[in-house]
Amino acid sequence: MKKIYNPTPESWSELLKRPTQTIADVEATVNDIFSEVKSKGDAAVKKYTQLFDGISLVEILVSKEEIAASEKAVSEELKTAINLAKANIEKFHSAQKTERVMVETTEGVNCWQEKRPIQKVGLYIPGGSAPLFSTVLMLAIPANIAGCKEIVLCTPPDKKSKINPAILYTANLCGVTKIFKIGGIQAIGAMTFGTESVPPVYKIFGPGNQFVTVAKQIAIKHGVAIDMPAGPSELLVFADYTANISFVASDLLSQAEHGADSQVVLVTTSKKLLNSVEKEVEKQLKKLPRKAIAEKAIVNSKLILVKNNTEAMKLINAYAPEHFIVISKEEDFFIENIQNAGSVFIGNYTPESAGDYASGTNHTLPTNGYAKQYSGVNLDSFMKSMTFQKISEKGIQNIGKTIELMAEAEGLQAHKNAVTLRLKSLKNNNDE
Amino acid sequence: MKKIYNPTPESWSELLKRPTQTIADVEATVNDIFSEVKSKGDAAVKKYTQLFDGISLVEILVSKEEIAASEKAVSEELKTAINLAKANIEKFHSAQKTERVMVETTEGVNCWQEKRPIQKVGLYIPGGSAPLFSTVLMLAIPANIAGCKEIVLCTPPDKKSKINPAILYTANLCGVTKIFKIGGIQAIGAMTFGTESVPPVYKIFGPGNQFVTVAKQIAIKHGVAIDMPAGPSELLVFADYTANISFVASDLLSQAEHGADSQVVLVTTSKKLLNSVEKEVEKQLKKLPRKAIAEKAIVNSKLILVKNNTEAMKLINAYAPEHFIVISKEEDFFIENIQNAGSVFIGNYTPESAGDYASGTNHTLPTNGYAKQYSGVNLDSFMKSMTFQKISEKGIQNIGKTIELMAEAEGLQAHKNAVTLRLKSLKNNNDE
Repeated sequence: MKKIYNPTPESWSELLKRPTQTIADVEATVNDIFSEVKSKGDAAVKKYTQLFDGISLVEILVSKEEIAASEKAVSEELKTAINLAKANIEKFHSAQKTERVMVETTEGVNCWQEKRPIQKVGLYIPGGSAPLFSTVLMLAIPANIAGCKEIVLCTPPDKKSKINPAILYTANLCGVTKIFKIGGIQAIGAMTFGTESVPPVYKIFGPGNQFVTVAKQIAIKHGVAIDMPAGPSELLVFADYTANISFVASDLLSQAEHGADSQVVLVTTSKKLLNSVEKEVEKQLKKLPRKAIAEKAIVNSKLILVKNNTEAMKLINAYAPEHFIVISKEEDFFIENIQNAGSVFIGNYTPESAGDYASGTNHTLPTNGYAKQYSGVNLDSFMKSMTFQKISEKGIQNIGKTIELMAEAEGLQAHKNAVTLRLKSLKNNNDE
Repeated sequence: MKKIYNPTPESWSELLKRPTQTIADVEATVNDIFSEVKSKGDAAVKKYTQLFDGISLVEILVSKEEIAASEKAVSEELKTAINLAKANIEKFHSAQKTERVMVETTEGVNCWQEKRPIQKVGLYIPGGSAPLFSTVLMLAIPANIAGCKEIVLCTPPDKKSKINPAILYTANLCGVTKIFKIGGIQAIGAMTFGTESVPPVYKIFGPGNQFVTVAKQIAIKHGVAIDMPAGPSELLVFADYTANISFVASDLLSQAEHGADSQVVLVTTSKKLLNSVEKEVEKQLKKLPRKAIAEKAIVNSKLILVKNNTEAMKLINAYAPEHFIVISKEEDFFIENIQNAGSVFIGNYTPESAGDYASGTNHTLPTNGYAKQYSGVNLDSFMKSMTFQKISEKGIQNIGKTIELMAEAEGLQAHKNAVTLRLKSLKNNNDE
């Protein structure tokens, strides 16, 4: 772990730099696969599933039988857990619904804003060692609350052509309309262009490896929106003397086990705490099954000592952490002044894993400093806001002159004319 | 104008196709200029201003004196109009503020969502023949209501190194913090990387030509967010027999005068209206100062006859117009069922120009079919949503088991451990 004492603000940007990711190499591969998926549909998807996943699929759509079987394959205990998490996530995301905003801006000029669901969305769930059914919850639940009509899910099959039953169970529970055994670039391509089996979608959500990340970025060029740009997961903990050392160490390690490139940062005003956490991390690390991964992230992790809370707050806002845990006697100061963070975890009994799974907040959050300008996934991510306006005869008479003057000043005579014609017609009617 | 009678749904996608834009050619230019702006700052900005705009600037920041002078240069009449428009836009966007959403999802588990302003935003206002001060209103007003700390505006200077006074007056009125005489790719580069004079921003808004559009797309790769992907402006009018022919024609023409590539579509259930509108457009077109431009867009415009309202609604949702005017006896049917549109204008007295300038709604809207998944600019465009959670001892005891089970099932032992440690510590405390 790297210990840094009282870094100057000038050094922060270097100190807090994330590893840069290279995209260029992967781009050509994505473009090739996309163009083949676009022209050959399912055949191309199957070809690349054979090539990358080493399996030959006859059917890429998960069948009703497979879904029914997953119901039985998941333990009752885990089902109960998934259902409790679902209830909390549902409560929190349902509460995010907004009413129509209606304003009569001038007499006779009624304007309103309404959110309507994005009709077709695609969810990507990575495969690999960890079956991320929790991410299914985080994406499918708000999609369903938003009212998206088509909720497509793609996830890579294992060597036996199967999807992990916890993923199938959760997807079915949360109203996913179609589940496909497709992973990687070909999955993003299929949801972008559509194939004989896979419906094209308007927006793609979900995490993935470097290939999926680049594929999502290139999908934008083909008219699809994505949830947010991706980067390695990260955690910043601010802890003062009130923090429990062993809890802090366990939180840093839970971030570290995500991957060797995970970003782990501790900021503190207490040198004593800094040294104690360092020792405790070493101790806890030894017992972890994913020790090999976590160790690499821990080597690059940073323990930063700062003068005071104000300095800490500035540094944290400059970093804009995805996850921000704050354990401080002055927690209100941090809650009030945090400007850039994906999700904030407050106090000794709020570990990041609570938000990852079951507290109710979403775990799909902006990394890589993107918390400065992107929201984490929330109900609105599955909707778009539309405006409406209805102007009465009186209304156009009230604002008509204003529009005419502004349109003329911008040199747009036809814009002016659309109003002039209406005003004249009303004048004539009144004169009659 | 192209008249199409009762097209089959299979033909819609071809019929409603927008012109594709070529990006590849411009990309290399953008990359070159970006890398020079990044390394050489103001010097590079000035070099390209000389090269593209043909003027040599000593100072790119607009001075207080220039702003004060603009106050005098704008007529009182136009100032009154701008202020009325501002009042309406402020009313509508202020009403979009959302309260903190707070939910106790499980006893002792408090989650909340709050929106906080994006600290630094950049607004781009194109130059050219039309000084788009209305776009300054549409971007600076919500930025200011959101509470953005730094609101930077870039707009190209004219041949006398000046900015149009209406733009300066409006920018100053709406709380823009710094105005720069920079246009094109170099402006987007300056706001992306920052220079000695221009602060780097987190999100860039505003319209522009093909170069600006591509520059904004490439800015994303450098960590900046943008308002939305751009495309030529478009209007779709649905009109039945209740519509005023001359109003409809004037609306189609107000769209057509934007540019030769403007998309203009009429959908109707009345063949009689279709033919009358065609004649009226030809008549009104002759009198327009921007006739040469409007004529080109009108040649490519489409007048589509459909069987009934249901068919019309399906076709309109498939097209996803930026601007959608509906003049129909059954307007409620369309209001209720429109899923994909940027902004909706209802009835004979609601021309698109009302929303372009003064009704209160925003005129920065998704084009090119992007209304399927993107919102128009609104208050939330200048904020990001963050979540918070605070869990009590009781709370972690209530959801701890669930988190442990889920983390274990995903193979993330350290995630589980962060909870286990806390549960054990509470158990020990209780046992004492």
